[in-house]
Amino acid sequence: MSNPNHPSPSERSRVVRAANRGIYDPATIAAIIDASEMCHVACIHNDAPVVIPMVHWRVDDRVYIHGATSSRLMKCLTQQAACLSFTVLDGFVLARSAFHHSMNYRSVVVHGRGTAVANNREPLYRAFLDKWWPGRYDEVRAVSQAENKATAIIAFPLDEASAKIRTGPPVDDPADVNRPTWAGVVPIHQTYGAPQADEHVPADMALPDYLSSTSNQRDNSNTKLSN
Amino acid sequence: MSNPNHPSPSERSRVVRAANRGIYDPATIAAIIDASEMCHVACIHNDAPVVIPMVHWRVDDRVYIHGATSSRLMKCLTQQAACLSFTVLDGFVLARSAFHHSMNYRSVVVHGRGTAVANNREPLYRAFLDKWWPGRYDEVRAVSQAENKATAIIAFPLDEASAKIRTGPPVDDPADVNRPTWAGVVPIHQTYGAPQADEHVPADMALPDYLSSTSNQRDNSNTKLSN
Repeated sequence: MSNPNHPSPSERSRVVRAANRGIYDPATIAAIIDASEMCHVACIHNDAPVVIPMVHWRVDDRVYIHGATSSRLMKCLTQQAACLSFTVLDGFVLARSAFHHSMNYRSVVVHGRGTAVANNREPLYRAFLDKWWPGRYDEVRAVSQAENKATAIIAFPLDEASAKIRTGPPVDDPADVNRPTWAGVVPIHQTYGAPQADEHVPADMALPDYLSSTSNQRDNSNTKLSN
Repeated sequence: MSNPNHPSPSERSRVVRAANRGIYDPATIAAIIDASEMCHVACIHNDAPVVIPMVHWRVDDRVYIHGATSSRLMKCLTQQAACLSFTVLDGFVLARSAFHHSMNYRSVVVHGRGTAVANNREPLYRAFLDKWWPGRYDEVRAVSQAENKATAIIAFPLDEASAKIRTGPPVDDPADVNRPTWAGVVPIHQTYGAPQADEHVPADMALPDYLSSTSNQRDNSNTKLSN
C-alpha cells in the first residue's frame, strides 16, 4: 500500500480505508487546513473520548488552537495525545444505487501531542486574525496582559498528518448505468454574507478593505482561500 | 450552574465552559443534528484518540452512522464509548479587541456507546437518503444482499447530549466601544449549487423535484432544513 506522495506515513497516520484516497503531501495538507474555518479536536478525558469544535490557524508546519487557560480541554490537550480533524465538504454524490451515494470532500486528520506556547505569542495572535482579515490585527485593541494570561495557545506539529480527498461524479456499477435515475453531483458552496455592523459602528464608517472586497465570497470547490 | 432547559444533564454532558450557552432541550439538539451535513466521530484506538468525519442521519431519538463492516472505526465504535460532534457555523464575530473575536455557531456533542443495527435496516436506508432528497430512495437501485452485508450501521442514543449556541453581535469591553474599528458579524451561508449530471444521464431527463426546487439553497442561519 505504497503512496508516491510521501515516503513514509506513520502507522497511525496511514490511510487504510479507501487507501487510494490517502495523500501525505504537506502542501495539500496545509491547503485543506487553511480552507477549513474550524477543526474538531479529540482527546481522552476520564477514559472516554471527547471531541470539540475549535477554530484554528496554521503557521508554517504547525497548527494552533486557543482556549481558556482554565478549561478542561486545554489542560487535557497538553498532557496527552490528541487528534485533529479538518473537513471541507464539496458536494453530495448521487449515484443510481443507494449504496454508491457518497460525498465529495477534502479532509485532513492530524495525530500528535500539543505543546503549550508560553512566549512570543504576539505573532501568533496576529497570524490568527490576519488569516481571515488581512490587516485587522493592527486595527483592534491589542491583547492585554490579563487576557493573554487567560488564554492558552497550543501548537500541534503536522508531521503525522494525512489527507483524504474525493472528487468527481458517482461511480455506479456498470449494470446500473442505464437506469432511469438522475445521477451526478450537487455542489456545496460556502459563502460569506454582507457584513452586519453592530450598534456602535457610526453610520459613516467605511467598511475595511478586507470586508468590502469580494474575496470573502468563498467557494468550497477551490482548494485555497482567495486571501 | 443549573439550567432551566433540562432537569439533569449527565456529568460529562454538562456544559462547563460558557455554561450559560449550554442547552439540553431535545428538540434543539435534534434540529442542530439535522442541520449538519456531517459529524465528527471520536473513539479510542490503540490508547490514542481518533476523530473522523462521517455523514449521519437521525430517526427519532437516535443518530445513525454507517461504514464498511471491515473498517477499524466501525469495530472500534461498537466496542467502547464514543463521542460525536455536530457543528454548524453561522458567522464570524469581529470585535474591537483581538480577545473578543468569536464565532456564531450551533453545536451538539453526544457521548455514548454505539450499537450495531443488524436487522430491519431498510427503513434506515430510506431515511438516510430521504433526509436530503425526499423520494429518492424509491428511485434508486435498492441495497443488495452483498452491499448490506458489507455495511455496518451504528446507532447512538441521544440521552447524553448537549447543545451550545452563540448568536448575535460581538460583546466588547465598554472601554473599547468607541474605538474607530469596524465591529459586527460576517454571516456564513452554506448553499447547494446547480446539480451536475454525470455522463450517463440522457439530455432529456428531467431533474427530480427534490433537485429542481430551491429548497436545496440552504442558509446556515436557519435552525431547520427547509425539507
